[in-house]
Amino acid sequence: MEFIAGLEKKRTMRFSELMREEMAGREASVEGMIHSIRDMGEISFVILRSREGLLQTVINGRMAGKELEELCTGQAVRVMGVVTREERAPHGIELHLKAARILSRPEEPLPLAIDKWALPTSLEGNLNRRAIALRNVRERAKFRIQEGICRGFREFLTAQGFTEIHTPKIGARSAEGGANLFRLQYFHKPAVLAQSPQFYKQMMVGVFDRVFETGPVFRAEKHNTKRHLNEYTSLDFEMGYIDSFLDVCRMEAELLRHVMRTLEAEYSEELALLKITLPDTEKIPCVRFDEAKRLVSEKYGRPIRTPYDLEPEEEALIGRYFKEEYDADFVFVTHYPSKKRPFYAMADPKDPSYTLSFDLLLGGLEITTGGQRIHDYQMLLRKLEEKGLEPEGMEDYLDCFKYGMPPHGGLGIGLERLTMKLLGQDNVREACLFPRDMARLRP
Amino acid sequence: MEFIAGLEKKRTMRFSELMREEMAGREASVEGMIHSIRDMGEISFVILRSREGLLQTVINGRMAGKELEELCTGQAVRVMGVVTREERAPHGIELHLKAARILSRPEEPLPLAIDKWALPTSLEGNLNRRAIALRNVRERAKFRIQEGICRGFREFLTAQGFTEIHTPKIGARSAEGGANLFRLQYFHKPAVLAQSPQFYKQMMVGVFDRVFETGPVFRAEKHNTKRHLNEYTSLDFEMGYIDSFLDVCRMEAELLRHVMRTLEAEYSEELALLKITLPDTEKIPCVRFDEAKRLVSEKYGRPIRTPYDLEPEEEALIGRYFKEEYDADFVFVTHYPSKKRPFYAMADPKDPSYTLSFDLLLGGLEITTGGQRIHDYQMLLRKLEEKGLEPEGMEDYLDCFKYGMPPHGGLGIGLERLTMKLLGQDNVREACLFPRDMARLRP
Repeated sequence: MEFIAGLEKKRTMRFSELMREEMAGREASVEGMIHSIRDMGEISFVILRSREGLLQTVINGRMAGKELEELCTGQAVRVMGVVTREERAPHGIELHLKAARILSRPEEPLPLAIDKWALPTSLEGNLNRRAIALRNVRERAKFRIQEGICRGFREFLTAQGFTEIHTPKIGARSAEGGANLFRLQYFHKPAVLAQSPQFYKQMMVGVFDRVFETGPVFRAEKHNTKRHLNEYTSLDFEMGYIDSFLDVCRMEAELLRHVMRTLEAEYSEELALLKITLPDTEKIPCVRFDEAKRLVSEKYGRPIRTPYDLEPEEEALIGRYFKEEYDADFVFVTHYPSKKRPFYAMADPKDPSYTLSFDLLLGGLEITTGGQRIHDYQMLLRKLEEKGLEPEGMEDYLDCFKYGMPPHGGLGIGLERLTMKLLGQDNVREACLFPRDMARLRP
Repeated sequence: MEFIAGLEKKRTMRFSELMREEMAGREASVEGMIHSIRDMGEISFVILRSREGLLQTVINGRMAGKELEELCTGQAVRVMGVVTREERAPHGIELHLKAARILSRPEEPLPLAIDKWALPTSLEGNLNRRAIALRNVRERAKFRIQEGICRGFREFLTAQGFTEIHTPKIGARSAEGGANLFRLQYFHKPAVLAQSPQFYKQMMVGVFDRVFETGPVFRAEKHNTKRHLNEYTSLDFEMGYIDSFLDVCRMEAELLRHVMRTLEAEYSEELALLKITLPDTEKIPCVRFDEAKRLVSEKYGRPIRTPYDLEPEEEALIGRYFKEEYDADFVFVTHYPSKKRPFYAMADPKDPSYTLSFDLLLGGLEITTGGQRIHDYQMLLRKLEEKGLEPEGMEDYLDCFKYGMPPHGGLGIGLERLTMKLLGQDNVREACLFPRDMARLRP
């Protein structure tokens, strides 16, 4: 009988291994895709791309056999050559090729010049050929940053005693009620896609005290803006035994600090490649909703038109205000009016027309919504009634409160929005691998 | 202006902090939910539950004030008392209460005796009141194990140079074709829910060489069995530059070893609580599909009825065979017939009626399907034709191959099935927080 052993040492090296001191002058094999070829007559520069970046390899025309002559852009290859110091090459080395094996040949030349520093195409062109466009090293670096955010999120919360959960995306009823739901038939029963894991993460506070989830959410919003996606990744957490919604804000502030440290430590190459300056997470101002509205109205002479909600323009001005006045990138806006918050938001006992809730803005864009939730069964029933909502279909959620729940609060972070803002992009589609919007269902 | 600082030190302690040597005889406050109360007349034992486990607290009737008298099961409380060594108590300490604050009161007594060692209810009863049933410390421990699997999966692959991706769950067309798809209307366009991230993870191999995703997948299979869910969490990876599908098997073997080490190191309490013996990942036999069929048919006298597929009973017998003959828990079954594998599976060049693919069985249940994929554009087109499939709607996927892709392979692990097998359960619903099956759309 044959048994499967562990990983075998690859016969090929990673690009980064070639850069070791002792490799100079030695033969090595590497694998990658041919990113571009510059034919200079006598010699050709063949740039290879792997997950680690680009490697300059060189063909000396006089020495090249048939295989080296056949190399062309888009192929996946395994090449062998001599590691040579060359100050002008990326990372100070190049590989002088002696042999090549073509692992895979493209049928047609690439439709996008992915080897250009900035991809020479519109966002639409980029998204239409997404899987090709992402082969551009700067395009793909954006999603390494996104990975770093997710990783930092999970690592931090795990260390803080949170448990990861996986909650269903198909359900009979949704947390936020009627509008904006994608509907489907589930074995002849009507069902909806989850707009958020809200009900489930609250229910799980009764089990694990502290929980988090990173997963897709679905919003059938008929918004066609630069900041909306109809499917996105939500980073959610919910924590029990809070004294105030400010405990949730503090957890998020510390979480964001950890995420930035993770990016600095583990994704420094990508940060440099994209010329990203990380936002300041040390000093995050905290301002009441009504106060924020007043401040920007006064400073920028903009009348308050919607007293119960923030218009996107107002959010942008709040961002600008706190950048100008306090050099702050993030701002917590607290105490949103009850009218615009869901039924489970805890009312401020000092003035129940406001809630103990918050949004976190980064560069004038909402990237988080959170707050303290109602944990008292009777209060929850009263609030449902006030909002004109039916408890029918919510029994599983309400039962948790009937049988006792600790005080708790939590939040949801839009992963693509946070990524977009870190990248300094102005369209959230740039920060989503395969975005879904009203017009886009593919690739 | 107020600024949000980092985390404040909690005024209450975690249960585990009370166990420190220097705490004996000192006052401390803790928070938790009242798991059960044993009234012994003069004194009462109040068992608190937090994410860390159970803590025995004691009320001496003569000293109890009004608040202590009001304590009842299901409340969330903050209590203060004196840490006292008591060998008979869990972890050797108990808290002699002096004061209590009730943070939240239940409306009704718990409908399930969650404080019993084994929850005294059927699986249906458990699932119907899932969020309450999970408050049982053994029930919830199962999902700590599940967290450990996920964490081990991500940590291992990150260290191996894989990049985490998030791919869309709503799409225009699915990887595996027609059947078993949940359909929905997406802004007046027909759409489907993703059966797997197959196409996307392959496409992303052209970008990052190695990728993984942990996310929900949706299968409208009309199976009502102990091993099927209609929504489950799939742990997927895909890797470029493989020499053989065995590279994928080796990566999985090493991954499973890492997962088991993670569980042993970080989840030892839960393993002990659930009396779990982890499966052996050191010695994983690898057997061809046709050979496996023959072996079990001969040994157990079971005629081969379906030459192209494994019946569940056959899988169970293969598991039994390798346990009996080699004391192996896992078995790789390789070279599945092309008839039963999807079009993108690489055919075995030695005999194209078989594929370079595999399933991994644990205890006689398939927990992984994987293999080498076709990376050549023309070969892929031919295979589509052979299978009678239309390339229409697959252009984005096919384009990646048209423009060049490295040789690659990958796999998908069913998180709930792996969890179920580690737990020694015989129904996959036991290993899913909120299972979805043909009859169950709630909670």
